[in-house]
Amino acid sequence: MNNKVKITFLGGVGEIGKNMTAIEYENEIIVIDAGLTFPGEELPGVDIVIPDISYLIANKDKVKAVILTHGHEDHIGALPFVLGQVNVPIYGSRLTLALVESKMKEFEKIKYKAISVKPKNVLKLGSFTIEFIKVSHSIAGALALCITTPAGNIVHTGDFKIDFEPIDGVMTDLARFGELGKRGVKLLLCESTNVCRKGYSMSERSVGRTLDEIFERNPSKRLFVATFASNIHRMQQILDLAEKHKRKVAFTGRSMINVSEVAMKIGELKYNKENIIDIDKVDKYEDKELLIVTTGSQGEPMSALTRMAAGEFKKIKLRENDLIIFSASPIPGNEKYVYNVINALYKLGADVIYDELAEVHVSGHACQEELKTIHALTKPAFFIPVHGEYRHLRMHSLLAQQLGMDQRNILLPSLGMQVELGQNSIRQCGFVTAGQRLVDGIGIGDMDSNVLNERKQLSEEGICVVVVNINNVSGCVSSEPFIITRGVVYQDEMEAFVQDAKAAIIASLKEQDLRGAEPAVIKNTIKRNISNFIFRRTKRRPMILTIVTLD
Amino acid sequence: MNNKVKITFLGGVGEIGKNMTAIEYENEIIVIDAGLTFPGEELPGVDIVIPDISYLIANKDKVKAVILTHGHEDHIGALPFVLGQVNVPIYGSRLTLALVESKMKEFEKIKYKAISVKPKNVLKLGSFTIEFIKVSHSIAGALALCITTPAGNIVHTGDFKIDFEPIDGVMTDLARFGELGKRGVKLLLCESTNVCRKGYSMSERSVGRTLDEIFERNPSKRLFVATFASNIHRMQQILDLAEKHKRKVAFTGRSMINVSEVAMKIGELKYNKENIIDIDKVDKYEDKELLIVTTGSQGEPMSALTRMAAGEFKKIKLRENDLIIFSASPIPGNEKYVYNVINALYKLGADVIYDELAEVHVSGHACQEELKTIHALTKPAFFIPVHGEYRHLRMHSLLAQQLGMDQRNILLPSLGMQVELGQNSIRQCGFVTAGQRLVDGIGIGDMDSNVLNERKQLSEEGICVVVVNINNVSGCVSSEPFIITRGVVYQDEMEAFVQDAKAAIIASLKEQDLRGAEPAVIKNTIKRNISNFIFRRTKRRPMILTIVTLD
Repeated sequence: MNNKVKITFLGGVGEIGKNMTAIEYENEIIVIDAGLTFPGEELPGVDIVIPDISYLIANKDKVKAVILTHGHEDHIGALPFVLGQVNVPIYGSRLTLALVESKMKEFEKIKYKAISVKPKNVLKLGSFTIEFIKVSHSIAGALALCITTPAGNIVHTGDFKIDFEPIDGVMTDLARFGELGKRGVKLLLCESTNVCRKGYSMSERSVGRTLDEIFERNPSKRLFVATFASNIHRMQQILDLAEKHKRKVAFTGRSMINVSEVAMKIGELKYNKENIIDIDKVDKYEDKELLIVTTGSQGEPMSALTRMAAGEFKKIKLRENDLIIFSASPIPGNEKYVYNVINALYKLGADVIYDELAEVHVSGHACQEELKTIHALTKPAFFIPVHGEYRHLRMHSLLAQQLGMDQRNILLPSLGMQVELGQNSIRQCGFVTAGQRLVDGIGIGDMDSNVLNERKQLSEEGICVVVVNINNVSGCVSSEPFIITRGVVYQDEMEAFVQDAKAAIIASLKEQDLRGAEPAVIKNTIKRNISNFIFRRTKRRPMILTIVTLD
Repeated sequence: MNNKVKITFLGGVGEIGKNMTAIEYENEIIVIDAGLTFPGEELPGVDIVIPDISYLIANKDKVKAVILTHGHEDHIGALPFVLGQVNVPIYGSRLTLALVESKMKEFEKIKYKAISVKPKNVLKLGSFTIEFIKVSHSIAGALALCITTPAGNIVHTGDFKIDFEPIDGVMTDLARFGELGKRGVKLLLCESTNVCRKGYSMSERSVGRTLDEIFERNPSKRLFVATFASNIHRMQQILDLAEKHKRKVAFTGRSMINVSEVAMKIGELKYNKENIIDIDKVDKYEDKELLIVTTGSQGEPMSALTRMAAGEFKKIKLRENDLIIFSASPIPGNEKYVYNVINALYKLGADVIYDELAEVHVSGHACQEELKTIHALTKPAFFIPVHGEYRHLRMHSLLAQQLGMDQRNILLPSLGMQVELGQNSIRQCGFVTAGQRLVDGIGIGDMDSNVLNERKQLSEEGICVVVVNINNVSGCVSSEPFIITRGVVYQDEMEAFVQDAKAAIIASLKEQDLRGAEPAVIKNTIKRNISNFIFRRTKRRPMILTIVTLD
């Protein structure tokens, strides 16, 4: 009997984001997570990036379920697109499913089945048995998985940290990881985000203590806290502090209002409704009685806080007695936006506290000593680091080797890699189609690099369109050429430029005998000449579109 | 007699980069620094950003000199453009002027006069007396200034840190700052880059100690160090370590070769020429005998190291026995590029050490306690923080207030602000034209926001060009419309798209009576229809260019 289990990496390896892993045995596949990535500026006009799931589509009949470790976008964000093509039941904690539900509202045509699970639940799915294990993370309801397969136990940590003072009172279930280690873990898939950071991550509770001090020191100010809506435990601490310091809470920002309502409904967030006021009512309270919890901690252009900083948020006008606390670190790449908002807030006379100035944020990911703890408890036979750029995965491999693991028992995954796990072996067995699909407008993955390259050229050099009418008999230009440019010439110079360009085209065509010439030949002649003309004039090489009409 | 001195902020306030300040008394202006900024991705196709010097051009006859505090691009990079319009003598240390000279080679038409100065030199320029004061920074030859004016002494720190173990053996001249403080400093202009960082910056020498340990631990590897060419003291330490560990040094990267030669010629960099080998000769040596010093510490696309990582650098092929040390921190915004290179290096099997993993870099800017030291020594009557975003300037103001300064004696500058300094007063007296000029191709400041906005739209949504021939008598389309798109439609769908778009245009024009209609009306009809057609089809709103020809 063949006990080989295949693991296919469809996202989250060699990159931060769009996490997705498939575990396969004979005719059964279970998928762990279905995340997205937000594109950088190298993908202009792209809204989100999701994994290429050609492999799952080709094996549609085998796929039995998507198991969600937690509700962050890089774990659930691709779900609408996945479920639209491979409609299988999804499993996750109540909060995770509640966040999925509010996301799926925009895709109401897609019906799906969602089953909520809790830590310690055991789920039987064909040949797989999946146990859910409580872990701490920067969102509530995060779960690690132990998947019992015919090849042995696979532990997948999801995203996690070890918090000895968790806000919900329930720690990452270290004991269970230890028991599994004793029973025998064949393969550990462990996240690698913070593997370069020494020591331990700080407890979420330390943020509460810092905020408490800040509240204490500023009894008469109007207070604002900007944070991630999904960081329910941060929200809980903020709400508790509001009660302690006798301040009413107003939420602002769509996701903040949505998520707080969702989390309260399912009991993840506990607060006295009487302490919550509508944002429209803030003017009825004194500054010292108010705490406004807002989105915009990443300087997002359309967020409530960014609009307040720009003076464009009607419901709240900022002023000197305001103190805005950024309880979040800028995600790499967002620094510029965050600091722009901070500068704007200061210019309005408000005070601002952010992560450079006080410990108002902690990471949700395990640092080196926490990762070592998980390795030491699970004692896996084989190890594959996941969730990280190549430098993280490699560092995680070194960390495992430091703990005594043989390098031959470690595999460094890359996108599309397929790994075969046996009773006593692990090996790379091939690659499947994988990569990124770009979502833009209503299109899903309908942009190729061609479109992006064109956009890049357009953005760097601009465009010049030339329309020329040629009399095919005389070979002469039969009417004045049309020239339109965008992104090339300064407004003041446009008239002179267009005139000279027209003259250049006419002159260049006169030099040659174009009687009976193919339109393609004429086109290229014009293109070459106008391109050289523009380069001499502006040192730029815009995209040239030539349209030749023949009389 | 009017003893009022005017200070005009033309760059480096409310921003990091393009530093430039003008000090003016009656008919005399001296300019401190003439720096550039490298543009972010919000300015596609722009090469560099320089200060708008309309004010200096309008007051050309008054400008007597440009004084350079040091040779970094954000202090000298705009010089070719400034000297092209306001040609005055420049003053700076030998290294600063040597770097200016190599920069000016590309602008050989511009003749200029350069006078080198040393710490303790005193320069008389009309009503101003300028004393140069030794400071430590991440480049050799950095100088602070004490400018004696009819309104009193103005101390300008330039960029600086306090390094108790400087590599060149000469410390920031704290004693002189103290003497000036005793004599009386009217106004302090002090840099603010690291004002958010607590404590002291580390000594440059600590980097040498870390590198020494790394060299010690890796005796058999081929070693590479990537750093800033202009960090002469870093270079000196690297060269000394090469000698200590019996390794030959090869430089690679144009700026590395240039700067090391320039610095050696003027004696700022001291090394035994026999230890330097040509990069073409590295194959003649064993790995353990080599140290390659390279550009590319910021992941710059065309740098030697980036090309090595991509396997595109012919002279050196990287392999498993290579260790690459990034002796630099990523400048904010460059992280993505740096980590891409690091990931690529790891994939080639090389080992990499970078700032997250070891202390292989220190900042060249003063942290809080160092800034306090300068405030305490100079005891200025008035203070204006410079070189920083608004949040830095504000924090620096708070730091000065902590030290006992009255808030009324502090001004927060912004671009174009003009300040009047009297014997016993300081006040904002107005604003002059200031801001950024964009340099692109051969053009200087010849791009307006219009061109940039067009490029932005092009890059996000693409473009669609429509050419329609209308018979003016019948009002009908007289030949098939032309349609070209770029950055909109996926290649596979292009044919169907173009066909449907043509049909849509023809159909929409049939609905209306266009006989005798103005071309502008027909154009708008087409534009609206094609835009809606494309939006329905792709959810994109590309730029539409419509060309209507009438028969």
